[in-house]
Amino acid sequence: MATLQDICVAAAINILSAFAFLVAFAILRLQPVNDRVYFPKWYLKGLRSSPKSSAALGRFVNLDFKMYMRFLNWMPAALKMPEPELIEHAGLDSAVYIRIYLLGLKILFPITILTLVVLVPVNWTGKTLELAQFKNLTFSNIDKLSISNIPTGSKRFWAHLVMSYVCSFWTFYVLYMEYKKIATMRLEFLASECRRPDQFTVLVRNVPPDSDESVSEHIEHFFCVNHPDHYLSHQVVHNAVELAKLVEKKNSFQNWLVYYQNKYERNPLNKPTIKTGFWGLWGSRVDAIDHYTDEIAKLSEEEDAERERVIIDPKAIVPAAFVSFKTRWGAAVCAQTQQSKDPTIWLTDWAPEPRDVFWDNLAIPYFELTIRRLLMAVGLFFLIFFFMIPIAFVQSLANIEGIEKVLPFLKPLIEKKVVKSVIQGFLPGIALKIFLIVLPKILMTMSKIEGFTSLSSLERRSAQKYHLFILVNVFLGSVVTGTALQQLHQFIDAPAGEFAKTIGMSVPMKATFFITYIMVDGWAGIAAEILRMVPLVIFHLKNTFLVKTEQDREQAMDPGFLSFATSEPRIQLYILLGLVYSVITPVLLPFIVAFFAFSFLIFRHQIINVYDQKYESGASFWPDVHRRIIIGLIIAQIIHMGLLGASGADKSTTPCLIALPILTLWFYIFCKGRFESAFVRFPLQEAMVKDTLERATEPNLNLKTYLQDAYIHPVFKGSKLDIPVAIDEEENNPLVPTKRTSRQSSIHSFDVHDKSHSS
Amino acid sequence: MATLQDICVAAAINILSAFAFLVAFAILRLQPVNDRVYFPKWYLKGLRSSPKSSAALGRFVNLDFKMYMRFLNWMPAALKMPEPELIEHAGLDSAVYIRIYLLGLKILFPITILTLVVLVPVNWTGKTLELAQFKNLTFSNIDKLSISNIPTGSKRFWAHLVMSYVCSFWTFYVLYMEYKKIATMRLEFLASECRRPDQFTVLVRNVPPDSDESVSEHIEHFFCVNHPDHYLSHQVVHNAVELAKLVEKKNSFQNWLVYYQNKYERNPLNKPTIKTGFWGLWGSRVDAIDHYTDEIAKLSEEEDAERERVIIDPKAIVPAAFVSFKTRWGAAVCAQTQQSKDPTIWLTDWAPEPRDVFWDNLAIPYFELTIRRLLMAVGLFFLIFFFMIPIAFVQSLANIEGIEKVLPFLKPLIEKKVVKSVIQGFLPGIALKIFLIVLPKILMTMSKIEGFTSLSSLERRSAQKYHLFILVNVFLGSVVTGTALQQLHQFIDAPAGEFAKTIGMSVPMKATFFITYIMVDGWAGIAAEILRMVPLVIFHLKNTFLVKTEQDREQAMDPGFLSFATSEPRIQLYILLGLVYSVITPVLLPFIVAFFAFSFLIFRHQIINVYDQKYESGASFWPDVHRRIIIGLIIAQIIHMGLLGASGADKSTTPCLIALPILTLWFYIFCKGRFESAFVRFPLQEAMVKDTLERATEPNLNLKTYLQDAYIHPVFKGSKLDIPVAIDEEENNPLVPTKRTSRQSSIHSFDVHDKSHSS
Repeated sequence: MATLQDICVAAAINILSAFAFLVAFAILRLQPVNDRVYFPKWYLKGLRSSPKSSAALGRFVNLDFKMYMRFLNWMPAALKMPEPELIEHAGLDSAVYIRIYLLGLKILFPITILTLVVLVPVNWTGKTLELAQFKNLTFSNIDKLSISNIPTGSKRFWAHLVMSYVCSFWTFYVLYMEYKKIATMRLEFLASECRRPDQFTVLVRNVPPDSDESVSEHIEHFFCVNHPDHYLSHQVVHNAVELAKLVEKKNSFQNWLVYYQNKYERNPLNKPTIKTGFWGLWGSRVDAIDHYTDEIAKLSEEEDAERERVIIDPKAIVPAAFVSFKTRWGAAVCAQTQQSKDPTIWLTDWAPEPRDVFWDNLAIPYFELTIRRLLMAVGLFFLIFFFMIPIAFVQSLANIEGIEKVLPFLKPLIEKKVVKSVIQGFLPGIALKIFLIVLPKILMTMSKIEGFTSLSSLERRSAQKYHLFILVNVFLGSVVTGTALQQLHQFIDAPAGEFAKTIGMSVPMKATFFITYIMVDGWAGIAAEILRMVPLVIFHLKNTFLVKTEQDREQAMDPGFLSFATSEPRIQLYILLGLVYSVITPVLLPFIVAFFAFSFLIFRHQIINVYDQKYESGASFWPDVHRRIIIGLIIAQIIHMGLLGASGADKSTTPCLIALPILTLWFYIFCKGRFESAFVRFPLQEAMVKDTLERATEPNLNLKTYLQDAYIHPVFKGSKLDIPVAIDEEENNPLVPTKRTSRQSSIHSFDVHDKSHSS
Repeated sequence: MATLQDICVAAAINILSAFAFLVAFAILRLQPVNDRVYFPKWYLKGLRSSPKSSAALGRFVNLDFKMYMRFLNWMPAALKMPEPELIEHAGLDSAVYIRIYLLGLKILFPITILTLVVLVPVNWTGKTLELAQFKNLTFSNIDKLSISNIPTGSKRFWAHLVMSYVCSFWTFYVLYMEYKKIATMRLEFLASECRRPDQFTVLVRNVPPDSDESVSEHIEHFFCVNHPDHYLSHQVVHNAVELAKLVEKKNSFQNWLVYYQNKYERNPLNKPTIKTGFWGLWGSRVDAIDHYTDEIAKLSEEEDAERERVIIDPKAIVPAAFVSFKTRWGAAVCAQTQQSKDPTIWLTDWAPEPRDVFWDNLAIPYFELTIRRLLMAVGLFFLIFFFMIPIAFVQSLANIEGIEKVLPFLKPLIEKKVVKSVIQGFLPGIALKIFLIVLPKILMTMSKIEGFTSLSSLERRSAQKYHLFILVNVFLGSVVTGTALQQLHQFIDAPAGEFAKTIGMSVPMKATFFITYIMVDGWAGIAAEILRMVPLVIFHLKNTFLVKTEQDREQAMDPGFLSFATSEPRIQLYILLGLVYSVITPVLLPFIVAFFAFSFLIFRHQIINVYDQKYESGASFWPDVHRRIIIGLIIAQIIHMGLLGASGADKSTTPCLIALPILTLWFYIFCKGRFESAFVRFPLQEAMVKDTLERATEPNLNLKTYLQDAYIHPVFKGSKLDIPVAIDEEENNPLVPTKRTSRQSSIHSFDVHDKSHSS
């Protein structure tokens, strides 16, 4: 067990490394050549352009030494921008995202002060460990400050019990105020927004097939009949998966062509050649520029043919569409109501904003969707509890003998002692490391299979999965040493109360481990975030090999974006640690508070200067954040209960704590009812206010033209799309002539009955 | 442990008693004097009137002896009526209710046949118990047919495992088909219904207070603005709790008055007198007829004053209203959408049908509602797990010594040996018995406190609570002997897997107990149901003392109604027993199948001839029935898992069973998504079809007059209600002049923002 000294040394190392990252950042960001890596957001906004210094050297290196003196001045600058301006500059998603760090601070800072003042003296004077010292038991100074120092059955546990209540109620208060604030921010944001296509549009899925009419006609007739006063137009969705693949392939070839052209220009004597086989390793050698020019021409032809096919072929139209209404009120009504008596067809939802649509998932039928969800739920269970099995298998293969067998020519190299020891030390870890890097991608793929239709919901869903993984494998896995599988066994075989006690007992002992974890993963990790090493390297590579024009440079710039799916669950881990250790080992909390303050600063800088979000969901992720903090709170309360139960506190303390999780659950339900609908539904009153305002200010607005191209698959963007526009007479006459005969129509409308009668 | 012979004897006794009930019923129902007890439904429908036989005796006793020969002919008659006619005759609620018995038959009859054919031979040849016999262990013949007869670790357990799968899948199939059928029946019922007020009406609750406008004006303005094309009128709700109490009191006095008048008429010499004090035990003696006439006159005055006050006083108007729309489409839209950005005000829901409204709960604010739900959830927990504590306390008081202390004059009587032994045998049980009789009322009161707004939802909620109680205290309580509190302890202290094993092990041993239970509670209980002893006695009492006119006789008739809240959870217990024992002791199943067949017959007779439902909810309870059967199925699967685990079956069998609960859960979610909305929402397409039809067939319908009095509190029914009708000009002009100044209005619409800003 680490002593106070060890912790101090570790802290010093981590603070120094974080500081080194910051200094490196401060220097690198001042170099004009890196300007596009550290300030891409301003370029995208058109507020900054490539520096045009007179001196040749000055274009790459900053020679103004005075600026180096003020190398930390980005910190106050990051805090200076007021929140409303930040929302306008970076979007509500980003502004609310950094409020999660602020929320962590709001919850934990007062708790830190309070527990340090109240519990540390109580623990310090407990004297259990000092007595134990005589029995030659080792203990660290940290433990003297923790609950472990309280003798079994002491009355002092009442202090911890009361603090558990105080912490929970303070968390309730902060969570409630924050939920209220975010809900208001979202409503204000939606209200203040100018006209946007998604305000008028509803995503309709599972359009039932009709033998007499095409999908487009069927949709038009259905909405003309059932929303006669409000229906405006609709946009069918084409199955453009193949086309998108072709476009992507063409873009990649284009890059290679530019690369070889640049290479040839710089060294005209040596015409670049490539091999045509797999990865350029085999096959006949041809001229690279000619080869790629040919390939691109071929692909362009294919692409045109495919585009033609997708637009003309009725089979390429998926049974889903974006239906637009004349008013926001009409769209709000359609999105919130059930259309058909069969709730699995004519599903209507708010359309995500055009950038946010995940096009591939729009056409999954109901039954398939439920099967997919079931399979992914089972898959997630196995991923969480059995992920070590394939990794152990790979590890058992990837040893020295295995490599020697597969690649015998490497034998002399590997057999060298230094290389051997490096491989042996390195290989076992690498499979796990690769898995952890790939994990978010696996989870995202699983979410995609589950069939969500917008990028924002995909991210939220992946975050949920990742949170579970972290909870089981990082938190519980560190506390109860052993794999998740062993924990599962223990959980089933041990009594429920016993399991809580086991965890409760081992939590105080892991405090020093988590302190180190926070410093390495938290402090140094966040400091590395601001340095942007990977984008820096990639930008310079692209800049050297691919950039010809200013436009190319624009494209080489990778501003990146806040990845909610991977970073939010990690914040949740820190909040969980804070809540768990608040009562148990208060000295851990300052480390977490430092992490939150530091992260807040850095991410505020990043969203101002760097990140460019791919879409704007209006902070619709907040209910998830709120729920996960509640989950953390309940876990903390159960652990406190188990610990107090195991520590032999008064018999009466544990029942006193049972009320807390119940209250927390009630608080969750209360907040859900009070606020969640602001993130899910769109009230009619708001819609009516905006409609009325718009009608008064812009009476002659042609909404149809405005909405015409809003929901077109990105691969069609720019190209002329010859989709037959709905005939105008029809939509002015709600009772459109249908192509179906009346007999068929009546059969159709009662087929549900018939089917169930005959069954 | 009971042997096969014991069971046969018990069965014979119960069959005989059931038969005796049936014979008594067959004789009693043929007597004209009982006609109104056994055929009240036909009287209420106006299809039957009091028998007018010429002979005086013939009016009371049936003298046609031929009819006694055919005393069982009500059975085929009960089955004869086809289902569509039954729905029209008794309503969809009743018709679907008896389908629960049919569903029990559909699930369990094939399972019974299959398990008897497959598992009984497997168990019979198991021979474990025969070997055990040599060791002087007792066992019953029943056990030789059960899973207990299979030796530990035998391969034969695979048969039980496969049967568990077969039973589950068969249950899925039947449940799915039934849910589909009921959903179709409901939709057809709603579609075929003629015009009803609730189709056009939405219940609006939590109308926010407004300083400038009355509740009525505020509602009208809000809906004129936000549903300009659809709003028709609204009906405010008056707080008539006091008034209803007065009316009830007056009715009771009226009854007493009639009673004493009748008494006086029969015996004019003896003028009836009463004492005015508590329960007529103390106080001065006065003339009864004069006294009640005076009291009624006084109450009438009070009632008029109160009615006046309620109608005029703006404080007597609660912040809730029934808002009617011009079309079903408009009502469907308003019921399904969120009106205001604060989701706790302007709550809209489908209005229950007028008879179904529970008037007292319409005005509970959101925060109070959540608090009430929390308290009732905690209360239910204590009721289920700690109900024995107060009963044991009462029992400890209500012993011989206690009675002697409180009522010393009874001492000589009690001290007699016979009396003493009766009291000692009788008293301890009576507290529990009273509790069990009162329990449904307690649960209903708890549901009322939770704030549901319709009688049907109150019944559904009470049924849910009662189901939990039966599950824990009857099923688990019988299997794991001991109180629920002890089980709770065991559940917390024992490992989760161990708990399932404990239950699994004791389930086979309880088979004979449950067989007896089914015969006593099920067979004899249902046979007693058809005899209607309590209504029979009460009717004859009322007929003797209170009836003067034919109309009085009409009122004395108590047709009763199907009490969903108490009887559905008991059906669920039988289905649960069937599912649990299907694999374990198949010989139990025929008893349950007999119960379901018998009940189906009797209740079909009762709903045709007796019961008169208080309201019609369109079978909206079906999702609850479905869910509870799923819960039963999962419990059965877990018990099978525990039993196979404990019986030392192959290690591989238990993991094979884990898939079943997961599949069941998925099946539940699938069905919920597929069908539940038919019971909760009203699709716009259906609404539009009905609207269009109506517009075509009745173009001149004055909907406003039709809806005017639909939603008036029952105490105002009949009396002229002078509520100011909304001014006509206003509703033709959606943009009504508001009384508020524009400054106030803008403050109002943004006050949520302001509050959270300032906080």
